[in-house]
Amino acid sequence: MQYRTDLAIEQAQNWSGASGIRMRSARLNGFTRTEVEVQSEEAARRLQKPMGRYITFETAPVHSLAQEARQALSGEIACVLRSLLPPFGDVLVVGLGNRHITSDALGSRVCESVLVTRHLKDTLPPPLQGRLRGVSALAPGVLGITGMETADMVRGAVEQTRPAAIIAVDALSARECGRIGTAIQVTDTGIQPGSGVGNHRMGLTLSTLGIPVIAVGVPTVVYSTVIVRDALTLLLRSMPEEQGDHAAAADALARKVTQQQLGELVVTPREIDQMVGELSQVLAMGLNLALQPRLSIQEITTLMNEAM
Amino acid sequence: MQYRTDLAIEQAQNWSGASGIRMRSARLNGFTRTEVEVQSEEAARRLQKPMGRYITFETAPVHSLAQEARQALSGEIACVLRSLLPPFGDVLVVGLGNRHITSDALGSRVCESVLVTRHLKDTLPPPLQGRLRGVSALAPGVLGITGMETADMVRGAVEQTRPAAIIAVDALSARECGRIGTAIQVTDTGIQPGSGVGNHRMGLTLSTLGIPVIAVGVPTVVYSTVIVRDALTLLLRSMPEEQGDHAAAADALARKVTQQQLGELVVTPREIDQMVGELSQVLAMGLNLALQPRLSIQEITTLMNEAM
Amino acid sequence: MQYRTDLAIEQAQNWSGASGIRMRSARLNGFTRTEVEVQSEEAARRLQKPMGRYITFETAPVHSLAQEARQALSGEIACVLRSLLPPFGDVLVVGLGNRHITSDALGSRVCESVLVTRHLKDTLPPPLQGRLRGVSALAPGVLGITGMETADMVRGAVEQTRPAAIIAVDALSARECGRIGTAIQVTDTGIQPGSGVGNHRMGLTLSTLGIPVIAVGVPTVVYSTVIVRDALTLLLRSMPEEQGDHAAAADALARKVTQQQLGELVVTPREIDQMVGELSQVLAMGLNLALQPRLSIQEITTLMNEAM
Amino acid sequence: MQYRTDLAIEQAQNWSGASGIRMRSARLNGFTRTEVEVQSEEAARRLQKPMGRYITFETAPVHSLAQEARQALSGEIACVLRSLLPPFGDVLVVGLGNRHITSDALGSRVCESVLVTRHLKDTLPPPLQGRLRGVSALAPGVLGITGMETADMVRGAVEQTRPAAIIAVDALSARECGRIGTAIQVTDTGIQPGSGVGNHRMGLTLSTLGIPVIAVGVPTVVYSTVIVRDALTLLLRSMPEEQGDHAAAADALARKVTQQQLGELVVTPREIDQMVGELSQVLAMGLNLALQPRLSIQEITTLMNEAM
Repeated sequence: MQYRTDLAIEQAQNWSGASGIRMRSARLNGFTRTEVEVQSEEAARRLQKPMGRYITFETAPVHSLAQEARQALSGEIACVLRSLLPPFGDVLVVGLGNRHITSDALGSRVCESVLVTRHLKDTLPPPLQGRLRGVSALAPGVLGITGMETADMVRGAVEQTRPAAIIAVDALSARECGRIGTAIQVTDTGIQPGSGVGNHRMGLTLSTLGIPVIAVGVPTVVYSTVIVRDALTLLLRSMPEEQGDHAAAADALARKVTQQQLGELVVTPREIDQMVGELSQVLAMGLNLALQPRLSIQEITTLMNEAM
Repeated sequence: MQYRTDLAIEQAQNWSGASGIRMRSARLNGFTRTEVEVQSEEAARRLQKPMGRYITFETAPVHSLAQEARQALSGEIACVLRSLLPPFGDVLVVGLGNRHITSDALGSRVCESVLVTRHLKDTLPPPLQGRLRGVSALAPGVLGITGMETADMVRGAVEQTRPAAIIAVDALSARECGRIGTAIQVTDTGIQPGSGVGNHRMGLTLSTLGIPVIAVGVPTVVYSTVIVRDALTLLLRSMPEEQGDHAAAADALARKVTQQQLGELVVTPREIDQMVGELSQVLAMGLNLALQPRLSIQEITTLMNEAM
Repeated sequence: MQYRTDLAIEQAQNWSGASGIRMRSARLNGFTRTEVEVQSEEAARRLQKPMGRYITFETAPVHSLAQEARQALSGEIACVLRSLLPPFGDVLVVGLGNRHITSDALGSRVCESVLVTRHLKDTLPPPLQGRLRGVSALAPGVLGITGMETADMVRGAVEQTRPAAIIAVDALSARECGRIGTAIQVTDTGIQPGSGVGNHRMGLTLSTLGIPVIAVGVPTVVYSTVIVRDALTLLLRSMPEEQGDHAAAADALARKVTQQQLGELVVTPREIDQMVGELSQVLAMGLNLALQPRLSIQEITTLMNEAM
Repeated sequence: MQYRTDLAIEQAQNWSGASGIRMRSARLNGFTRTEVEVQSEEAARRLQKPMGRYITFETAPVHSLAQEARQALSGEIACVLRSLLPPFGDVLVVGLGNRHITSDALGSRVCESVLVTRHLKDTLPPPLQGRLRGVSALAPGVLGITGMETADMVRGAVEQTRPAAIIAVDALSARECGRIGTAIQVTDTGIQPGSGVGNHRMGLTLSTLGIPVIAVGVPTVVYSTVIVRDALTLLLRSMPEEQGDHAAAADALARKVTQQQLGELVVTPREIDQMVGELSQVLAMGLNLALQPRLSIQEITTLMNEAM
């Protein structure tokens, strides 16, 4: 009876203190870092999220951040990614979603700004050789465009190129308007079936691919029902005569009116073009810093320009 | 105390039968054509729309229409445009809005598919010469990109090239979710200050430019408040104990919760990229058929390809 | 001692009548269709082209063709493709090259306009079901962008999805300026290592992938040496006192001056953006007609629009 | 009897030491700066370039430059521009050319990266207010797209907004292959009729617009004849028995074979997409530094991001 969300943090809010669910928050310089750890199968069922770690950064809208704040955010994302990546071996970055739909294009946009090095490792000049981790990048497109399951294409690439891990980037769906463009989730549980803006039919996980899959995502869309539900919750709270579980009541009312009568609408902010552009830069820099810890931002930028 | 809408039809709904407001609807083959005529200054004040004619086509979402239905719609738009255009003289097509924001890019996209002929009239082979109306096209961009008022740039172009009329195309804002991508408004009143997705600071009208300005627009965005308001209205209607003006009550509640507590959000459907692409094709063909009544669709398409 | 060309027709010109090389031309309505058949291993060595069939259409520049001529060309390409495709089974369309370099983007552009049906076969309404051939599409990108060999990515997709054949589309390099945008080659020999604008490092052939690979390509670039060589050949021919093999002499001179002193330059016509856009439409329609012989152009266009 | 070039430096090479033509070169850090001053009407006739100053930077291909070298180049361009701009008053940046043809898109691309401030001057926070020069930007498009002369549209904008000067950016045509993407010309003589990749029909000059017009351009295309001519010149030089004016002889031969027999082709390097992308960044930063001398690169970048 709940709206789907791809954010563990939104699910965990309702279960704080429950057994098997551990939640810790830290205030960093200008943003919040919350880790939800789902520690038991029972907790996973409750949260409808697989066992594992979910680290979420909450920030002001990325486009309102100054240049230094963006770099700090990229640096924090890199820290988390490094702690989840295996120490050695090539990494395959997978950009999920449909690049022709802006709100679903985050994954493929990040792919375009990741420093790809797998093919360079042996041909680079000595000062760089040995300092690069092998990185490849794949934006497989969606079923409707390719006729092939994304999961099949990723499995094919894994079998042919044998990376040690995958980082999968995707646009997410959230349950609160305020998360759009402001929450960045990193998890070691991979991509689940039914998740993401495009609702992936099959998952990308350690168990389906045989290597660790780290997923990075940001909400870019919200259901119109959610907007109504958020409003109704606030409304009920402001009525002294109304008692009980406002959230559940608002939920039921919102579903009733929007799904049956208005029609469900998936909406995205008017500024989606700019938002996705900026988010993809911040995420790509986070990935690059995580994947190439021996390179400076300057060296990464220079190599990116040469690779174009 | 009402939400802004660029559609006269939405304003007129509340004033049907009022003096000075004439409203006629016709069911065409698969869509509805409604004309609102604002006949007096008093009616204009009530509707907050200047005196003049507003013709609105309501259709299923354009991307769900079959090819023939789209062509029929273009043909009907062409009929209305022809009835509003002066019989002779060049026409300047102005595409308003910001082409970097998909929901505001309708105007500039239409410009790219309009058959531009002003410079060709004398150089074409004899069978075509004399059959072409002179058409020019300008997508001036928005103040934030150019540093110049759109209205100033249009005035400059008018003074230099002396067209007999302007057709201005713009993305609109609506007051009901269901209008997004489904209502096409054509009016002889031009572009008003404060209208459009980008909220034009100055108007483009007969009185400011000295030539007739026909405006064509389609809603592409809606305020989140509107989604909440629509839901609340339905909710109140479904409660037998609630009496009175549901619309006004819902309005007040919606404003209270969204603007004060949620923050106002301008949203657009997730499929906005596809929607704007298809709308611009339908509108451009409507303009081309209206502007070149002596050419067939085939000839227009061929000339468009050559001009690219 | 010859320039590389991806066109068998350019190689075969010098060996007409040689054993194992069969060459037939037909004048069709507005364009020429030439088939080169390389029938022996010895002939293959001479031509530096593997044994097989190479059908080339020569036309006026595609953008100068009227709409009907383009459709006729698509129809002829479809005929040839159908004669080379296996009668049953899914087909994977592979768009080779780098979509960020316009002259190398032909393959990925064609992919975007191919009707993809593999995932639709079971969900379509009855009138369409059973009439569709399963088609999937992959534009794998180039090594510098993905870090993975194109051939590896295609092999992965083949192993996961088991198509009966591949159609690979690529931008080619020619040895005569006049071939750019005017020669369309279809061959049953697949993609060879070292071919194409981007110089593929590994081939895509029946022997490497285990299924037939039909390659479709159009020249989009030419070496500056070639321009010089063409000019020198004409120059030598016009000098009565010069005797002997003008072609070889021009070749040697052209190489000497351009490679050693001017630097080799790969050039493309100024109108490359428009040229690639139009070629990709003609080729994609050719593929669609070949792959869906039971659909009309109208049905294909409608399904394409829905799939977007 | 000479090929058209938009570079005064190429014309002046043949007239060094002639009266009324002054030419000075300086080796800067990694690139050359050459100033050609055309001081008399007679010299202007000889060079087919109007009286005025032409400053040309010659560099390695911009995409091969390291980040610091690019910034240094932007800084030098800024210095020259500042010396040519009037000390006070708004500046209108005009991006000439066709943004749909990559080799002609340099002007409109630069426009997109220029910091536009004319509309901000009064609304900025105090620390920035008073430090900004008013800048507007216009990319009017070409005649074939708009149906209006570029010069008319610029005149309209000038009359409406009254800038003190114009900086016009355009893609140029060169007479030597080696200049493509490597020579940046800045001149105080404006845009001449017949110049540029798109061959402007009318000029933009002090005499036609009433305000100073500074033109900035980089060659992006070359005629195929030029490639042949360059090769023939080298060839003749290498023949000891040939005497006399190799350049003129090569010229005559090149014209004869390419124009009469091969057909004239305007070509551009295969890497044109990347080349124009990088050139536009370097030029835009040069303009921004020249126009906003009181802002740091950091402040310019931040304001650009906010403006998007």
